[in-house]
Amino acid sequence: MMSGPLVETRSSQRKGSVVLRRSDLGHLVHRLLCVLTSVAALSFMITAKEASTISIYGFQLPVYSKWSFSHSFEYVVVISAAVAAHSLLQLLISASSLLRKSPVILSRNHAWLIFAADQAFAYAMASAASAATGVTNLNRTGIRHTALPNFCKPLHSFCDHVAISIAFTFFSCILLAASAVQDVIWLSNN
Amino acid sequence: MMSGPLVETRSSQRKGSVVLRRSDLGHLVHRLLCVLTSVAALSFMITAKEASTISIYGFQLPVYSKWSFSHSFEYVVVISAAVAAHSLLQLLISASSLLRKSPVILSRNHAWLIFAADQAFAYAMASAASAATGVTNLNRTGIRHTALPNFCKPLHSFCDHVAISIAFTFFSCILLAASAVQDVIWLSNN
Repeated sequence: MMSGPLVETRSSQRKGSVVLRRSDLGHLVHRLLCVLTSVAALSFMITAKEASTISIYGFQLPVYSKWSFSHSFEYVVVISAAVAAHSLLQLLISASSLLRKSPVILSRNHAWLIFAADQAFAYAMASAASAATGVTNLNRTGIRHTALPNFCKPLHSFCDHVAISIAFTFFSCILLAASAVQDVIWLSNN
Repeated sequence: MMSGPLVETRSSQRKGSVVLRRSDLGHLVHRLLCVLTSVAALSFMITAKEASTISIYGFQLPVYSKWSFSHSFEYVVVISAAVAAHSLLQLLISASSLLRKSPVILSRNHAWLIFAADQAFAYAMASAASAATGVTNLNRTGIRHTALPNFCKPLHSFCDHVAISIAFTFFSCILLAASAVQDVIWLSNN
């Protein structure tokens, strides 16, 4: 345990530790939510596959949709897996610091590191969710270049899985962005 | 840790003004780049339209592509116009402060405001660029659900315009993200 080496810093340390403990708990809950949403996004996307038939100009064509057919959906899977790993790591680190009664953020460098990671993952999540939305939107409305049918009618369950996954991805992105803002508040106060 | 903050304020203030002047110039150049890239993204996207013909199962179909046919491309146009306006406003404010020899960032609240705006626009740009990339990628590779032809062969110029616009959108996003980091550095030092 660290016992204050300087007499003057004791009172400020004690006051600081109360504030830190409350924000640490918030940190934990926040990270837990991040883990849950990214795992939800990941699992809904991975389970998105369906086989059906579609008729184009009188031809009956078998269609089979799977998440791995689209680069955008693959991107969502990769990024949400990375975010889940990052969030879980941060959650474990935070929990162990909380158990040892030491602050979650140890130094300014540590805060900058967490900020950079949160920021990068938030951008990646926003990008993944948007890329996937762009593709799904095209599927839902049909492609306007030519008179193609709506893919989401025969592939109902597939589209639903993708939509839910994207919603979780966006939610996870918002959580990460909030986490980055928390880091900035820490940096601006310390 | 923290020792004698009262003694140090004077020298750090004097030193701070020199640092601010240099960072203000960087700010100006940065904002100018932001304006240029977002205007480039906007203008390339707006000029993206082409008419051609495509053959599907022996049928000759006329195709006409325009940026406004895709929600993702419309999103790019809207967001890059907003970013151009925001960057231009910030550029004018920064330039006028520099001419009046006052610092660009006046207070912590002002810094937070700029940070929030930069951050929000950076996310929006990342999202717009990714959504557009998802759609273009689908067009380039053809849609794997059914055996459809590559849209970018007959619509060569359209796809090029879109690709260049997306590249500028990503670049603008990176510039905005860097701007947000600069704001955080200011907040953490002041």
